[in-house]
Amino acid sequence: MASNTRTNGARLWDSLMQMARHGATPKGGVKRLTFTAEDRAARDLFRSWCEERGYGVRVDVAGNMFARRQGKRADLAPVLMGSHLDSQPTGGKFDGAYGVLAALEVLRSLDDLEIETLRPIEAVNWTNEEGAIFKPMLGSEMFIGAKSLEDGYAMTEPGGRTFLQGLDTIGYRGATPLKPYPIHCYLEAHIEQGPILEIEKKTIGVVTAGIGLRWYAITIVGVEAHAGPTPMGSRRDALVGAAEIVLAVRQIAAGIEDGRGTVGCLTPQPGSPNVIPGTVEMTVDFRHVSVESLAAMDRALRAQVEATAARHKLKASLRDTAHNPTIPFHPTLVSWVREAAERRGLPSLDIVSGAGHDACHLAKIVPTTMIFIPCEGGISHNEIESATLADCEAGCNVLFDVAIRAANEAKEFD
Amino acid sequence: MASNTRTNGARLWDSLMQMARHGATPKGGVKRLTFTAEDRAARDLFRSWCEERGYGVRVDVAGNMFARRQGKRADLAPVLMGSHLDSQPTGGKFDGAYGVLAALEVLRSLDDLEIETLRPIEAVNWTNEEGAIFKPMLGSEMFIGAKSLEDGYAMTEPGGRTFLQGLDTIGYRGATPLKPYPIHCYLEAHIEQGPILEIEKKTIGVVTAGIGLRWYAITIVGVEAHAGPTPMGSRRDALVGAAEIVLAVRQIAAGIEDGRGTVGCLTPQPGSPNVIPGTVEMTVDFRHVSVESLAAMDRALRAQVEATAARHKLKASLRDTAHNPTIPFHPTLVSWVREAAERRGLPSLDIVSGAGHDACHLAKIVPTTMIFIPCEGGISHNEIESATLADCEAGCNVLFDVAIRAANEAKEFD
Repeated sequence: MASNTRTNGARLWDSLMQMARHGATPKGGVKRLTFTAEDRAARDLFRSWCEERGYGVRVDVAGNMFARRQGKRADLAPVLMGSHLDSQPTGGKFDGAYGVLAALEVLRSLDDLEIETLRPIEAVNWTNEEGAIFKPMLGSEMFIGAKSLEDGYAMTEPGGRTFLQGLDTIGYRGATPLKPYPIHCYLEAHIEQGPILEIEKKTIGVVTAGIGLRWYAITIVGVEAHAGPTPMGSRRDALVGAAEIVLAVRQIAAGIEDGRGTVGCLTPQPGSPNVIPGTVEMTVDFRHVSVESLAAMDRALRAQVEATAARHKLKASLRDTAHNPTIPFHPTLVSWVREAAERRGLPSLDIVSGAGHDACHLAKIVPTTMIFIPCEGGISHNEIESATLADCEAGCNVLFDVAIRAANEAKEFD
Repeated sequence: MASNTRTNGARLWDSLMQMARHGATPKGGVKRLTFTAEDRAARDLFRSWCEERGYGVRVDVAGNMFARRQGKRADLAPVLMGSHLDSQPTGGKFDGAYGVLAALEVLRSLDDLEIETLRPIEAVNWTNEEGAIFKPMLGSEMFIGAKSLEDGYAMTEPGGRTFLQGLDTIGYRGATPLKPYPIHCYLEAHIEQGPILEIEKKTIGVVTAGIGLRWYAITIVGVEAHAGPTPMGSRRDALVGAAEIVLAVRQIAAGIEDGRGTVGCLTPQPGSPNVIPGTVEMTVDFRHVSVESLAAMDRALRAQVEATAARHKLKASLRDTAHNPTIPFHPTLVSWVREAAERRGLPSLDIVSGAGHDACHLAKIVPTTMIFIPCEGGISHNEIESATLADCEAGCNVLFDVAIRAANEAKEFD
């Protein structure tokens, strides 16, 4: 095993900074939306780096890019590593790009160290992970066959352009079919996008699962009325009801260990300073790794919505808009990440991914896991998103170790 | 006195229904925004009704329209009665139009009954009361000199057109200067726009004052973060802070007799289902007739904003955006309204106007009062706004009595 070898952290960092020039924002972040000129430039740069090392790049019909470093046995399924190069509208330098460039750095280091693996190893850049334009993780969803090519192509961005038109605009509709060969396993390195590793002073997050999620859209209807003449006791104020639900969502999630509850959207109508809101539309996002806990949160929310509506004489309706079960990662790969961190003396912590990642799709069809590194203050989807060179290198070394170990196993995972 | 005489309720109702055709909406309401074709058509109709009775119509430089029925003494200051013909974007048939057409009905009934008054009596339609386009009550504000003609003309609507351009578009920039002669008193009949008269089963609201008001804009800043990976204990959720303030505003107002407190606008940013809101902008509207109570509400709000910010590690700032003191109406006129209702056997109730009206501006320079009638469910600024013929006639009869009484007094009010 390779724990006395290491990847080149300085080169990885340099690649991250070069990549961050494409879509660089004045505040030090990145705006690199799917199917824009910045996305194309980032893809071109990744392709040129791969090709100058001799890694053949294939682009599939969904625009996913695969760079292969050959192994001794071309007949064996490759180890796949990667993430995405697209960003949020006000994104950072690390979310996604770190996973792609750490994968590239693993391949480069294997070259430098003249390490030959049994299986081929590939670095992948998935199309449209962020969902700032289309729905999130679309490239990997199409790859695993959870969304058909036809349906994916027909998806439409707010401006009216389809996924297929966008793909053609940047010239990244490839000829390779979706998943043309078996994959041995999938590994994704990523910044945590939360504060837990930083708070716990750990370098490596051993990601055991992708968290389960339920989304709701709630509509509250009261009676729009003039703010001056309407006595407090006669009001049916939809925003008062919504405010109770906001606080309840927080209380429900905080009351269950490792629960998450968020109201991200809330729109009172008509939205005039002297009119009592007659309607509010709002969203709720609940997450928990345990099926039972997520169900308990669901029951508590429904009870709260009913109680609030009754108390304030409102009509409230709740619609389920998403229900993604927890995705457990492959136990063997998870233990290999834990062991690699330990062997390198890196403090690690078992952690659940609170966010969705391409790995959550891949886990449905191949053995998969993720490796997290800390990001400053836990802040992500933000131009001030930051990570250290040391942590980037540490995560890349763990990825290197697990990739080699997987690539040298002749037999498939159980 | 005229309690054995009465106005013609059926004719008043018919005029209300004819007027409501201008800007009629499919839901039975009215959309008659200031300086639109509908506003012009309503003005033209009002003018034609006045002129066919021989009431000379003067339009002033702010577009306010005055129709005069002469009295015995042309040298005495006239009694002025009226309201406004413009509406909210989704307004009703009665808000404003009732006060203008009740004033016209008083003049018509005086003709029918061949009653001559000492003083002239005028019916007025004030320009732009609703504030759906410009700020509210602009015509009467310019009339009393609280806003200069120059400043009023320069006000700009969202589309970029100025008040002066709008006025010229509909051809209602008149030649009469603002307030060219003294006014004896001002009377305004209006639907209550609240539920109190209906709840208390009273026909006439004896309006003793226009309520005092404070407006605030509050900005709450937390930290925008990903809804999945961020533990509840690490969050600085601006919307949670805003929700606490919404509930506190309700509690503060409900805890003081006759207090009113409303959050009408609330906007979380970035407004994405899986992002913890980093910023919220919100408004607060507090009203109370007592200076001390309004000050107590103000103190309670400031303390709450500070406590909420501290509890959730947020930054919160509060700006005062309006502070209009309570406007007491003229005690003699108020008692005349009460007496007129009693003499006609109409159940009445002393009430404070919770909404702003042109009368609140007029009260600053001339003896003024208002007469309220019930509206169904207290609902106004809504296409379903409704009032009965009987109540419209009752309010008009009280207006008739008070106008005659005022118009037959040779001496000025104290």
